Amino acid sequence: MRILGIDPGLATLGYAIIDKQGNTFRALAYGCFRTEAGLPVEQRLLSLYRDTDRLIKEWQPRVMAVEQLFFNRNVTNAFLVGQARGVCLLAAAQNGCPVAEYTPLQVKQAVVGNGRAAKQQVGAMVRVLLNLAEIPRPDDAADALAVALCHGNTPPGFALRRG
Amino acid sequence: MRILGIDPGLATLGYAIIDKQGNTFRALAYGCFRTEAGLPVEQRLLSLYRDTDRLIKEWQPRVMAVEQLFFNRNVTNAFLVGQARGVCLLAAAQNGCPVAEYTPLQVKQAVVGNGRAAKQQVGAMVRVLLNLAEIPRPDDAADALAVALCHGNTPPGFALRRG
Repeated sequence: MRILGIDPGLATLGYAIIDKQGNTFRALAYGCFRTEAGLPVEQRLLSLYRDTDRLIKEWQPRVMAVEQLFFNRNVTNAFLVGQARGVCLLAAAQNGCPVAEYTPLQVKQAVVGNGRAAKQQVGAMVRVLLNLAEIPRPDDAADALAVALCHGNTPPGFALRRG
Repeated sequence: MRILGIDPGLATLGYAIIDKQGNTFRALAYGCFRTEAGLPVEQRLLSLYRDTDRLIKEWQPRVMAVEQLFFNRNVTNAFLVGQARGVCLLAAAQNGCPVAEYTPLQVKQAVVGNGRAAKQQVGAMVRVLLNLAEIPRPDDAADALAVALCHGNTPPGFALRRG
């Protein structure tokens, strides 16, 4: 099963494509899409939308996994992240790619076995689970890998909503 | 000059098309796009995106006017509204429609002459400025008319960012 993980953001959007075969995972591609702070927001969103749309068309994932909401950041941040998340979900819907949503707690629980794990622990476990030479950088890419792994490790019915 | 005003929201998205000729304004169309709470968020965003895209293609506005941010609501709300705003701005960018952004204070200042005006005063002034028989309903449509009027009444250079 091929899974696309997305960690949305306006300046930096993390993405990850992983394959699950049996109980093993393999990372096919991961990284970040970046947009320039000086550009109008609609141009930044257009850039992120095109990148995400291209990614879905290229890799044909079975599902897009994404964190549902976040609760710990401020309103302005939520607003900016929400805009980026909106165009990613739109690209999924337009490409007929179902969306599965997980809480941050579910992601940490599924990857580290501890819903309160530190960010470093998540990166370290992502490296181990995917047999990578190094902890993936930047954090946005690691977070996208983590939510994709979460989807792969979560039995159907345990997602907030499973694509 | 034809102006599209948008008041973004996931459940209810207010829109307004107005024309400015000399110093008079005319409302050509206004109302709301609604989405069902029970649908997956990506389907709701797809619906709002299609409605907004259709609106831009049909009316060919010279600019999309939208409030920039809001500061008074909670994080979850900001996140949901941000997603809806994201797909509206995307539709603008894809159609080559510039985006002008105004603070809520600027909108009230431009429409009522008082940045601290109550919501009812905004609706009442929108009715007067557009020579409408009644105060536009629901509030989302009135707010979309207000931000469109704000753009029409604001001298270039006074927008946060003018399309």
